[in-house]
Amino acid sequence: MRFILADWGTTRFRAYLVESETILDRVSAPSGVSVLKPGEHAGVFSRQCGHWLSENPDAPVVLVGMVGSREGWAVAPYAPCPADARDIARAMVPVDLGNGRQAHIVPGLLFEPAPEACDVMRGEETLALGSAIADGLVCLPGTHSKWVVMSGGRIERFASYMTGEMYALLREHSMIGRPATEPGDPSGFAMGLAAAERNRGEDRAARVGLLNLLFGARAAVVAGKMEPARLGPYLSGLLTGDEVNGALSQFAGYDSVTIIADQARADLYVSALEARRLHSTVRAPETALVVGIAQILRCRDAP
Amino acid sequence: MRFILADWGTTRFRAYLVESETILDRVSAPSGVSVLKPGEHAGVFSRQCGHWLSENPDAPVVLVGMVGSREGWAVAPYAPCPADARDIARAMVPVDLGNGRQAHIVPGLLFEPAPEACDVMRGEETLALGSAIADGLVCLPGTHSKWVVMSGGRIERFASYMTGEMYALLREHSMIGRPATEPGDPSGFAMGLAAAERNRGEDRAARVGLLNLLFGARAAVVAGKMEPARLGPYLSGLLTGDEVNGALSQFAGYDSVTIIADQARADLYVSALEARRLHSTVRAPETALVVGIAQILRCRDAP
Repeated sequence: MRFILADWGTTRFRAYLVESETILDRVSAPSGVSVLKPGEHAGVFSRQCGHWLSENPDAPVVLVGMVGSREGWAVAPYAPCPADARDIARAMVPVDLGNGRQAHIVPGLLFEPAPEACDVMRGEETLALGSAIADGLVCLPGTHSKWVVMSGGRIERFASYMTGEMYALLREHSMIGRPATEPGDPSGFAMGLAAAERNRGEDRAARVGLLNLLFGARAAVVAGKMEPARLGPYLSGLLTGDEVNGALSQFAGYDSVTIIADQARADLYVSALEARRLHSTVRAPETALVVGIAQILRCRDAP
Repeated sequence: MRFILADWGTTRFRAYLVESETILDRVSAPSGVSVLKPGEHAGVFSRQCGHWLSENPDAPVVLVGMVGSREGWAVAPYAPCPADARDIARAMVPVDLGNGRQAHIVPGLLFEPAPEACDVMRGEETLALGSAIADGLVCLPGTHSKWVVMSGGRIERFASYMTGEMYALLREHSMIGRPATEPGDPSGFAMGLAAAERNRGEDRAARVGLLNLLFGARAAVVAGKMEPARLGPYLSGLLTGDEVNGALSQFAGYDSVTIIADQARADLYVSALEARRLHSTVRAPETALVVGIAQILRCRDAP
């Protein structure tokens, strides 16, 4: 099956021409939805992918990511989780590409883990489906990391962690990250992981809380007890460890995790999970995206 | 005893003329240490308090707060904690006011709660001494809240939480706080406290982690499950509850807490502590400051 796929996020537009899960061609542009006005989306798509459309008149076109949010082209309302590829295929929302051609926007998922709790994702559902994991725990690190429980090929539960955004807040806007120097000393990461580990243990007196540990990192540098070059990686380790602690608390009982991330970011999670004695498999986001979309399209075409 | 006291912080200069713990006169100016260059401090002090100096030629002058930091007038190195008023009096650092007069800068405290952990305070040690609590737990909410264990009139241990700064980061710079509307609906605070409570309990599966709960608050608003006006107070309740959880984990066994804060901020902590069945007493920061300085000066003068 040949298809056209756009991963259309807040800041980037990335599109792929795909044949049987193999990428034949690709384009990328800084035309994320945050810089577009209503009415501009079809034109952007046509300029970037018009030649693919005309050369592949029967290829389905699928859009994934923030393009389906309120800030995007058209709202693709969150589908409820649990959801499988067929549920997601059914909830896709069409938009008009012109010349009688349509694209379909993949909806995000909404999950209510408890009566007063709520979680959402938009884009990661497709990568989770493309993880090649029918039953298991999938981790998608990022600005808002996602942990996804797959069960019988279905997205059963998930949880988001604002880890990447928190790291950026602390480094760019906070007194906590201000004493950090670059280049960072990577040995700080394991120290941060160790601090997160003490904070989760059975020793109640050591469960001092993340907001205390974050301040303590700055205090250690200010007091000359930590090298300033270690602070950035330390904060990263502390936040990553805290995320892993929370995720493994709510999604317990797994001995391995599939991580979908670029290698550099994945490596941090591999070491955080090793510290918890979990085995990891790393999968490239692009591969997962293409496989996930192919799966959704097969479901749509199935009787 | 008559004395002159300046609470000289990052953004404000506040000075008091005090007689026997009663404030006789006060001045305030936006001349915090962050806007001053080296060499300007004596001039600022003289302009603000020169008339007190000449009218009270024998009154000791004490400076407290960030004036003793690297960004201040002169570095008053952190004294080690545990420390009592006498230890702090001994570690004060003199600066020259001109005309043969000196002021003394109160040092901050450094505490190492564990081999790889570190905490600091600068200013709050004086308020804790002025809490009128010889044995007990004192809470000083703020940008970097402090929890102080007093024992035999001595500052025995303490821990800082970046709660106030975190709230500001989330409201001003983060995607998490962006959907919040003003005026905030105060009922969100108790909902945030309840979320923090679930996150600390014995139910391991409910210990999902602060970074998950913060994202979930945004998700609830985006998904139409929480009123946007509740989001700000919810985040405040969640962070305050998380702080209280950590503080009561490491400083366990108390049934009451003395809160040193303005009434509006204190009220939030009173309700967070009530939810944990702890009784609170609120004390005004200004009173604690004056009483604390008086105590330090009495120690200095004692044989």
